[in-house]
Amino acid sequence: MSDEQLGPTETSDTCTDWPVELRGVTESVVATLGPNDLWNFAALGLHASDPDASADDTDSVTATTWGNTRTRRNFHRQGGGVVQFVTDPRDFVAAAMTITESESPVFDSADAWVEVEVSMVDSGEDGGTRWETWELTPVEAGITQTRPYTINRGFGAVIDATVAASRLDVPAFDTDELLSRLVYFAETVEKCGGPKEREAFARIDELTGWRERASERRNESF
Amino acid sequence: MSDEQLGPTETSDTCTDWPVELRGVTESVVATLGPNDLWNFAALGLHASDPDASADDTDSVTATTWGNTRTRRNFHRQGGGVVQFVTDPRDFVAAAMTITESESPVFDSADAWVEVEVSMVDSGEDGGTRWETWELTPVEAGITQTRPYTINRGFGAVIDATVAASRLDVPAFDTDELLSRLVYFAETVEKCGGPKEREAFARIDELTGWRERASERRNESF
Repeated sequence: MSDEQLGPTETSDTCTDWPVELRGVTESVVATLGPNDLWNFAALGLHASDPDASADDTDSVTATTWGNTRTRRNFHRQGGGVVQFVTDPRDFVAAAMTITESESPVFDSADAWVEVEVSMVDSGEDGGTRWETWELTPVEAGITQTRPYTINRGFGAVIDATVAASRLDVPAFDTDELLSRLVYFAETVEKCGGPKEREAFARIDELTGWRERASERRNESF
Repeated sequence: MSDEQLGPTETSDTCTDWPVELRGVTESVVATLGPNDLWNFAALGLHASDPDASADDTDSVTATTWGNTRTRRNFHRQGGGVVQFVTDPRDFVAAAMTITESESPVFDSADAWVEVEVSMVDSGEDGGTRWETWELTPVEAGITQTRPYTINRGFGAVIDATVAASRLDVPAFDTDELLSRLVYFAETVEKCGGPKEREAFARIDELTGWRERASERRNESF
C-alpha cells in the first residue's frame, strides 16, 4: 500500500485502508477459515457507507450474511477473513455457487486482497432467513496487479446471473422473471464474453439446470 | 507502454499494441474528428478476434458502425480516431446516447486511450440499416491510470441500460421486454450503484422517458 492510499487521519502502521475504491455495493469474494483448517470462499457484497453519511462514518464498510452459511459461522468463530477482488469470472461463480475450499486464502486471479476484522452490527429475520450485518475493518492489504478499467458486458452478465440463479428456489422471487433474465444474460455472454465468461456461465447451468427449466416454461406457455 | 505489453513479434517503434487486454466484446468510447474540427464521442464495441482463430489473426480487432452516424462519417473522412476506456458511467452514457463534442479527444475519466487507424473490412444491410465493420490498428497508446479490477453491478446496469434504451424504438425489438429489463437495471443501480451510476441512469431516463413508458405499460396490463 502506498501512503497516498491512506486517509488523512490514518498515519499509524496498524491502520490499513481498503486497497480499492468502494462505492455503492462492490461485489467481492471472502475467504474465511473453517474448523477443518481450510479457507472457504464465498461471494460478499461490500456496502460503502452512504455518501450522505456524516464525516465520522465515511469509512464504514458493511456486508450482510444470509442464513446459516459457512461465512457466517466462520465470522463468528474467527472474527474476520480475507476479502479479495477477483478478475476471473470462474472464481466468482465457484465462490458464489459452490463449496470451494483451499489451503490458501487468496485466489490467483485476485488483483487485490485485504484481511478484515468483522463485528456484527445488526441482525434480523426476513422470510424465515436470519441475516446478520457485519462491519468490516481492514487490518492488512495488498495489491497484486493493477490495470486500466475495461467494460465487458459478458463478465457483468455472469455476475448478475449468479444472483438470479441463486434466487431460483426462493419463494419471494418470481421464477419466470428470473428465468427470462437468465436467457438475456446467456445471450449477452454468448455475444460479448470471452472464453472464461462462457465457461463460468456454463457452470451456472450445470449447477442449477436453469436452461432446461427455462425451456420447459417456454413450452408450457404455448 | 512498457515493453512487457508488446507482443513477441512487435519490436519496431512504429508498432503499438492495445493498452488493455481485450476478449469477446469490450465496450469502449471512440472520439472521431468531425468537419467542425471538434472530436465527437460515441460508444464502440471492440470485438477481439476469435480465440480459435489462426495465429496470424490473433491481433485483429474490429468494430461495427450501424447507420449513418458521425463515427462512420468521420472514420471515412479521417481514417481513424481515438479509442478510450472510461471509468465514469456518465461519460459512457453521454457518448452512447447524446451528441457529445469536445476540443480534446480523451475524456478525463479514461484510464487508457489508443489512437487507431481504421479500414472497412465488411458491410451490409440489416432491416434497412447499413452496417460497416472496421478493422482497428493501434498507432499510439497511453495508460493514464491503473487500478485493481472491481465489480459494481450498478455500473454494469448503466451500460446494459444504454443498450436497451437505444433499442426502444427499433421495430426488431420487443418494447415490453426492453422496458421490463430497464426496470431491473433501475433496481440494480438503486441498490448497488454509487452517486455517478445514479446520475448516469437518471440521464438515460431524461433522454428516453422510459420510466413513464414502463409505467403506462404496467397500467395497461391491469
